[in-house]
Amino acid sequence: MKKLTIGAALLSMSCFYAQSLKSPDGKFEMNFQLKNGVPFYNLKYDGQTVVEDSKLGLRLFKDNSAKFGEEISKVDQSKYNLNDDFTKIAENRDSKNETWQPILGEKKNYINHYNELAVTLHQDKADRNIIIKFRLFNDGLGFRYEFPEQKNLNYFVIKEEDTEFDFPTDMKAWWIPGDYDTQEYKPTTSKVSEIPKLWATSYEENTSQTLIKNAVQSPLMLKREGKNPLYINVAEAAVLNYPASNLEVDAQDFKFKTHLTPDAQGAKGYIQTSATTPWRTIIVSPKAEVVLASKMLFNLNEPTKYKDTSYIKPTKYMGVWWEMIIGKSQWAYSTATNVHLGKTDFSKLTPNGKHAANNQKVKEYIDFAAANGFDGLLIEGWNIGWEDWFGHSKEFVFDFITPYPDFDIKMLNDYAHAKGIKLIMHHETSGSATNYERWADQAFQLMNKYGYDAVKTGYVGSIIPRGEHHYSQWTINHYYRIAEKANDYKIMVNSHESVRPTGESRTYPNYISAEAARGTEYEAFGGNDPDHQTILPFTRWMGGSMDYTPGIFQTKLDYYFPGDTRFVKTTLAKQLALYVVMYMPLQMAADLPENYAKHMDAFQFIKDVAADWDDTVILSAEPGDYIHTARKAKGTGQWFVGGITDENARDFTVDFSFLDKGKKYEATIYEDGKDADYINNPQSYHIYKKIVTSKTKLPVHLVRSGGYAISLKEIK
Amino acid sequence: MKKLTIGAALLSMSCFYAQSLKSPDGKFEMNFQLKNGVPFYNLKYDGQTVVEDSKLGLRLFKDNSAKFGEEISKVDQSKYNLNDDFTKIAENRDSKNETWQPILGEKKNYINHYNELAVTLHQDKADRNIIIKFRLFNDGLGFRYEFPEQKNLNYFVIKEEDTEFDFPTDMKAWWIPGDYDTQEYKPTTSKVSEIPKLWATSYEENTSQTLIKNAVQSPLMLKREGKNPLYINVAEAAVLNYPASNLEVDAQDFKFKTHLTPDAQGAKGYIQTSATTPWRTIIVSPKAEVVLASKMLFNLNEPTKYKDTSYIKPTKYMGVWWEMIIGKSQWAYSTATNVHLGKTDFSKLTPNGKHAANNQKVKEYIDFAAANGFDGLLIEGWNIGWEDWFGHSKEFVFDFITPYPDFDIKMLNDYAHAKGIKLIMHHETSGSATNYERWADQAFQLMNKYGYDAVKTGYVGSIIPRGEHHYSQWTINHYYRIAEKANDYKIMVNSHESVRPTGESRTYPNYISAEAARGTEYEAFGGNDPDHQTILPFTRWMGGSMDYTPGIFQTKLDYYFPGDTRFVKTTLAKQLALYVVMYMPLQMAADLPENYAKHMDAFQFIKDVAADWDDTVILSAEPGDYIHTARKAKGTGQWFVGGITDENARDFTVDFSFLDKGKKYEATIYEDGKDADYINNPQSYHIYKKIVTSKTKLPVHLVRSGGYAISLKEIK
Repeated sequence: MKKLTIGAALLSMSCFYAQSLKSPDGKFEMNFQLKNGVPFYNLKYDGQTVVEDSKLGLRLFKDNSAKFGEEISKVDQSKYNLNDDFTKIAENRDSKNETWQPILGEKKNYINHYNELAVTLHQDKADRNIIIKFRLFNDGLGFRYEFPEQKNLNYFVIKEEDTEFDFPTDMKAWWIPGDYDTQEYKPTTSKVSEIPKLWATSYEENTSQTLIKNAVQSPLMLKREGKNPLYINVAEAAVLNYPASNLEVDAQDFKFKTHLTPDAQGAKGYIQTSATTPWRTIIVSPKAEVVLASKMLFNLNEPTKYKDTSYIKPTKYMGVWWEMIIGKSQWAYSTATNVHLGKTDFSKLTPNGKHAANNQKVKEYIDFAAANGFDGLLIEGWNIGWEDWFGHSKEFVFDFITPYPDFDIKMLNDYAHAKGIKLIMHHETSGSATNYERWADQAFQLMNKYGYDAVKTGYVGSIIPRGEHHYSQWTINHYYRIAEKANDYKIMVNSHESVRPTGESRTYPNYISAEAARGTEYEAFGGNDPDHQTILPFTRWMGGSMDYTPGIFQTKLDYYFPGDTRFVKTTLAKQLALYVVMYMPLQMAADLPENYAKHMDAFQFIKDVAADWDDTVILSAEPGDYIHTARKAKGTGQWFVGGITDENARDFTVDFSFLDKGKKYEATIYEDGKDADYINNPQSYHIYKKIVTSKTKLPVHLVRSGGYAISLKEIK
Repeated sequence: MKKLTIGAALLSMSCFYAQSLKSPDGKFEMNFQLKNGVPFYNLKYDGQTVVEDSKLGLRLFKDNSAKFGEEISKVDQSKYNLNDDFTKIAENRDSKNETWQPILGEKKNYINHYNELAVTLHQDKADRNIIIKFRLFNDGLGFRYEFPEQKNLNYFVIKEEDTEFDFPTDMKAWWIPGDYDTQEYKPTTSKVSEIPKLWATSYEENTSQTLIKNAVQSPLMLKREGKNPLYINVAEAAVLNYPASNLEVDAQDFKFKTHLTPDAQGAKGYIQTSATTPWRTIIVSPKAEVVLASKMLFNLNEPTKYKDTSYIKPTKYMGVWWEMIIGKSQWAYSTATNVHLGKTDFSKLTPNGKHAANNQKVKEYIDFAAANGFDGLLIEGWNIGWEDWFGHSKEFVFDFITPYPDFDIKMLNDYAHAKGIKLIMHHETSGSATNYERWADQAFQLMNKYGYDAVKTGYVGSIIPRGEHHYSQWTINHYYRIAEKANDYKIMVNSHESVRPTGESRTYPNYISAEAARGTEYEAFGGNDPDHQTILPFTRWMGGSMDYTPGIFQTKLDYYFPGDTRFVKTTLAKQLALYVVMYMPLQMAADLPENYAKHMDAFQFIKDVAADWDDTVILSAEPGDYIHTARKAKGTGQWFVGGITDENARDFTVDFSFLDKGKKYEATIYEDGKDADYINNPQSYHIYKKIVTSKTKLPVHLVRSGGYAISLKEIK
């Protein structure tokens, strides 16, 4: 009896275990608790509760660890969920303060500084251990679940991860609706408490969408308003071999809960131990600028194992692209609407006369890009299959190696290379990931043969394997499998319609960027709101750069199509500012050469601006309102500043104190013209030069949906 | 008004259109009718109705032909199902009488002789055409749906194919339960009317199974009993880019209806026109032997397009296999139960001491196989990953290129080749088809490097992409994609746990065989019934050969494991007979060398028997009871005879009239010993020689589950 009594006492102790962790600067405190065997955490900043006691845990779909001969007994393991019956059996603390250099980045050095608490929890009935690991940084909290390999935990299938984020008060939120397949939604700005009411009107139709009612996507930007505002970003990091998560909203309790993307069978992750979940992240600061500058998601990813990263280079490119987006020309070569790859003879089809990727046009683009110092030229629609590429769940939709009859791949690469331009490959998969995997080696070999070193991939439409989602575990594995294969061929990847990045570029530095949000193309598909670009850096951008494709000078589409009411909802100067505000090392100048040719003075900024940086200073920012950013170009010491505003005109004073003291710079300022207006007069801009030092304070005026860009060159 | 009246009259005429087709010999008559726009067919043989008026048509799941910009409008097209509202707009007749030579086959020449009727039907509301094409042979009917490319029919998704087979009377049926993932069931013999009653007890558990209540699988063997019996086989041919079908049973009306295998989303076929369905086949004869000899399913497949088939050769092989099946040794190398390919160092794991595919053992098998004139040796368990290969839905389960530490692939191939043996590769996929496709090129390159020319593939467990089935369209495309890739590398394929063949070996002649039924391995997993081998040739074999792996001499497993009650439920002589009864050009001698060494006199038959044939004569057959088959070896003029019986002992007289008149043959007869019994004395056999001519009639006695084999060599 004595033994039992001691056992019960121990159980009771460990069952109600509590422990806390502080950030290196002491400002944050995370408290972990077991209450009746259920794990909880909370988070305080500067003594204030940021996150109230919030549950942790996972439910399992079924056991998948049948042995041979027992293969049918797929036992329902719900009684063995990983969310209760826990006792603490070990506690480990660690800390790190390291500086690392991203291959391409917003700064030369990223600082990874945290204190860590890892609690090993034991389930008595199931006889299993898991670890919950917390890392508290000076800008917030990251935590994840870890599943060590052990006798009773080798393989399992997740039914749901139930990580909660329980906030004490209502907050302002910048959100898009939960979806398993797309993030191409306009952000909605509302109170958390208003999300359910607004949810049903928060989306438009998309080519592939699977909405999750009353859920929102991450990164989710929040603001506790009031006298002492607090900016909070809820996101995830290192989403690898795991589905991406959405956040279910409990609008009454201001609480969010993870909701993973399922596969075709509703399963949310096939796990083989040892394994870890992605990190759940909560970045917190009284300053929006600190949130925007946070590198927490990158710090929570593993360093790359790539042996050679020398081929990964910042690249500025133009593209045979915008003219198809707006409908001026076409990806498809012929008038056919039903083609069979491997059977259809494309040289015998009737040309539609609007095929953009033809030798003559591509040469003209090459000429312009070369004359203006670009590195690359993207050409979409170069390969056979575009006649019926979309909407048919057609698995063998592209082969990625066969050019259309009017695209001479050898001649065009030779022509481009002779002028110092590399062509950028385009691999639209139409969502048919199985087909892309079949052809990837041949496709990359073709790229090597002709000297392409970057590829834009695309996943428009529903995913094949049918029933998988853009954000499910299988498909996420596909994206990074392609990244690794591209690395084998020394190829950089710019992925579209794939999952949002969550800091993986630290591990896969050739996976330069993704799209995974509503880019410039939507200006032709219904429009982005004037505040769009002031929100994206706080949400989509937190885990990695986006191919937003800025640089549209001819914002009004009635230029091409009389009477067309579509227009890009910014001023021309704001387009320039985006090159600084929106970090993207594979950066596009998206407009047509003819439009740049009309504004060569403004175009000079795009020619000058860098794409990779030694330093970044967020001068001032408020999500949904404005962002002012200064960046120092990698290696050159040259600085660039960009500022944008939402639908409101604003005045701002650029404080150049970020410049080296004692040095003089020639600043070229590209600002909205006095009469500029994003609706009525978008192409009005004003360019002037000025000598500035670190003491200079320069007033700028931004018209509604306007902006400014400044390039600074040291005067020696 | 006049125009309208004429229109209505035409509509009325074509709406009630009827037409008939006769077989070349005039014995069969097929009648096609449109009744109120709904298509029906019936089939008569010798004036008797074999199939009553039966409906034709398909229902569509949804329209998948959205155009860009309209991509969301996945309109429910159920109102435009392809099953009514038809009028006849064209009728085309054709006939063919050709002889073709299979690369490997049961005869030198296959005769393809039919009359054809193709009816083009028009749907007025949907403005679409389909064609229903009938081919009437002298042994029955084949028909299919054809979907020409046209303005309103480019892409669609099938909800269900509703082809009916309405029989006028109750019949005896040999059936296995409907399933999307396995055919490894014991056949049930019952009346059609009894199927629903017996359905729930017709199956055992399988590693991957998805049963379809009250459905049965095809080929389905039926017998109209009575004074004038009629044997009927319902099957399908050329199941390519389409799901395999089951047959739903209406036991009251003796009616069957197709039930296709769905994908993860419940869709039953993504079709891009022009396209055709598989052929639905009904083979009919008063003689069971005629059904068994039918080559209709092969005739309904397309000739191969392979340019070089010289590498496709009949092959007799042994294998390091049966000892793992019975549990004497293991596929896995180590004691580990959780391995990560690419991370786990297998050379550092603890060997389990039971790994069969080790250098020493493989050399012993090579020695024996070489000494006895075999062509090949299969080795399973040679490659890393078997520790946890099964039941975990593990996608990266094998790499197909990395041998275990105790398997020296170069040394063993060198050793084998020096002795005239080719090693046969084994690619178990564990159902992870996506993973296999990723590795297939490297795997086949490895085979080429070491001189393997045949691979046994396996699909144990549930398919990945998760939610796809072994018999769904995607997975069927996978099997033949692998066959085509194997052809690129000049490799023969013997596929296990894949879909049953439906005559495709005409098109893919390197796809030698499949398993797709309960093979000899089940003798160790619960047993096959004594009538099993008398049913399979009438069902599973109708569309292609099966790797049944005969030749077990040591039928009692207590030889290995004292007290073990498992045993192979045949006599030894019946095992020999299977080499003639069961056509298989990549034929195994499945037992251990040590067991053959004890019966070298009986083993002589396996050494002598051919695997590819110039002629085949079914001497006598009754499904579920007995089969007696004579075959003439390709090129040599040598004949072989085999006969088997079910649980009943039988006497039979072999009529040698199939032999060339005037020639003399030395016959070696391998028959059951007088005291032989498949339970009590299976290894009792009697071998003797006799001179025979075409006039000889030789009485043989088959004990219960016994058999006999005869080899005949001309005496010159």
